[in-house]
Amino acid sequence: MTIFITGVAGFIGSNIARRLVAEGHRVVGFDNLCRGVESNLDGLVGNPLFAFETLDLSDLPAYRAALARVHAADPVTEVWHMAANSDIPAGIADANVDLRDTFMTTFNTLEVMKELGIKTLAFASSSAIYGDFKGARIREDMGPLLPISNYGAMKLASEVAISAAAESWLDRALLFRFPNVIGIPATHGVIYDFVHKLRATPDQLEVFGDGTQQKAYLHCDDLIDAMIFIRDKAPEKLAFYNIGPEDDGVTVRSIAEEVVAAASPQARIKFGEGNRGWVGDVPKFAYSTEKLRTLGWAPRLDSQAAMRLAVRQIVEQSF
Amino acid sequence: MTIFITGVAGFIGSNIARRLVAEGHRVVGFDNLCRGVESNLDGLVGNPLFAFETLDLSDLPAYRAALARVHAADPVTEVWHMAANSDIPAGIADANVDLRDTFMTTFNTLEVMKELGIKTLAFASSSAIYGDFKGARIREDMGPLLPISNYGAMKLASEVAISAAAESWLDRALLFRFPNVIGIPATHGVIYDFVHKLRATPDQLEVFGDGTQQKAYLHCDDLIDAMIFIRDKAPEKLAFYNIGPEDDGVTVRSIAEEVVAAASPQARIKFGEGNRGWVGDVPKFAYSTEKLRTLGWAPRLDSQAAMRLAVRQIVEQSF
Repeated sequence: MTIFITGVAGFIGSNIARRLVAEGHRVVGFDNLCRGVESNLDGLVGNPLFAFETLDLSDLPAYRAALARVHAADPVTEVWHMAANSDIPAGIADANVDLRDTFMTTFNTLEVMKELGIKTLAFASSSAIYGDFKGARIREDMGPLLPISNYGAMKLASEVAISAAAESWLDRALLFRFPNVIGIPATHGVIYDFVHKLRATPDQLEVFGDGTQQKAYLHCDDLIDAMIFIRDKAPEKLAFYNIGPEDDGVTVRSIAEEVVAAASPQARIKFGEGNRGWVGDVPKFAYSTEKLRTLGWAPRLDSQAAMRLAVRQIVEQSF
Repeated sequence: MTIFITGVAGFIGSNIARRLVAEGHRVVGFDNLCRGVESNLDGLVGNPLFAFETLDLSDLPAYRAALARVHAADPVTEVWHMAANSDIPAGIADANVDLRDTFMTTFNTLEVMKELGIKTLAFASSSAIYGDFKGARIREDMGPLLPISNYGAMKLASEVAISAAAESWLDRALLFRFPNVIGIPATHGVIYDFVHKLRATPDQLEVFGDGTQQKAYLHCDDLIDAMIFIRDKAPEKLAFYNIGPEDDGVTVRSIAEEVVAAASPQARIKFGEGNRGWVGDVPKFAYSTEKLRTLGWAPRLDSQAAMRLAVRQIVEQSF
């Protein structure tokens, strides 16, 4: 029996593959290597439990044929759909980016699963589906859902396509609403951006916005623990859970200071204006994770500890 | 200045066009005549204020070129996007139907509007975005939003694509959450189906489900009043309103009885089992329209009166 992962060469996908293989599962992953990189699979490729194929999920006939081959060789019991655009500003400039990479990858995954009779789907959803709740602590059952980025819109569009499929043919669907997730191998995100800016200009770190934007961060290791916990314990057929730490998060200012201290202590931090870094950014954001806590899971690291660990890991990865 | 309507040859689209032309507006409408029919435009075609073009919105280059020509001749100030799949079971059998006709028509409309700098969009959303709230009175700000049909999913996907566009480039967006709308020219829906079944078998009316499904119905004339009222009065940049009557609706049984009395009094009604007519149908549904009432609008006809009028109109249209 095989677990199939989309976006397997990405930040989250490669970490899930590593965990599932370590637990003795047979894992097959696809990635178009557009944002994912093959080096993220170092140590996995060559393991007899793991197989990788370069494939673009937006090419439906190729996707259908490739997954049918995998499924015929050894039945696929679960799909973990992690492939998506990860560049939110790019998706705001051109809505086609998230249409193709965030939504149509989900739509095509459902199509191929339905055709092959694979009926369990785990999906990387996002806090971005909620839009701007002005800092209120967001529970899973709150509305209205009015995302402010095409990324958030196409993650929500994916959720609801899965919801409709769960009503008619899926046996089980898991919607993991990710917070900001940090760790390695980093491919994007605020820590990654700051580290790379400091590599280019070691004396100055320019920050979008005034640094007061505050968000919760979860370390990737905790995220994967949470997803496997929900998969094993959630009683619902259609399970949707916020995943995140308990706290109010850390500010962009504190992240900038931590990165400067770790990577380039002489650098001066130059802040911008306003508390929105870019259109589509939610300035202050807080999750309720009560539903997941009630199920019995809590992260090992809070936002501050996760951020400090990830800064050390990303600086080490990058210099 | 021109108002542009998609799906103009459909049930709602043709009624809007008629109203706007009667108010002295210049109106241009497109329709692919897949579900809409040209005879719905009788009396409009030939009016110098109205122009119609057969066009499939899923053909983006053709859509772009055609709307650019309209806009160059006389600037388009508002788009009323009414085109969509209207056959919910067809969309459950094949998710591509609502992807193409319900969601991609919205996505392409946004793309073309952005390119041409047209910044006001009115959208035909639906109660189907809410999924099954087990008969609770649904307010606009309730969650979670987990539609149970691909139609509901792709209407919600459209709403949230519009929400993201409102954050970055649209000046104004109106999301009209339609209830079940009835009236003429009917092209689909429960009354239409019953009337056409009785034409085929005048002695018996077979009903899916046990007839206890209960929904609110709004007459089309009231719907159009409400949309124009919201367009003129709603203060929000991104306005989302449930539109519907105040009541709990009428049962499928009472509709069946009314149709039989009007069209074929000798017919015996044969009910099925269960209170779901088909997968994706919501058995009991109630809207809160408090937000719209607070804004100052209420329908002239309640569900019962709207149903009775529509039955008379549709029987007259069909026999």
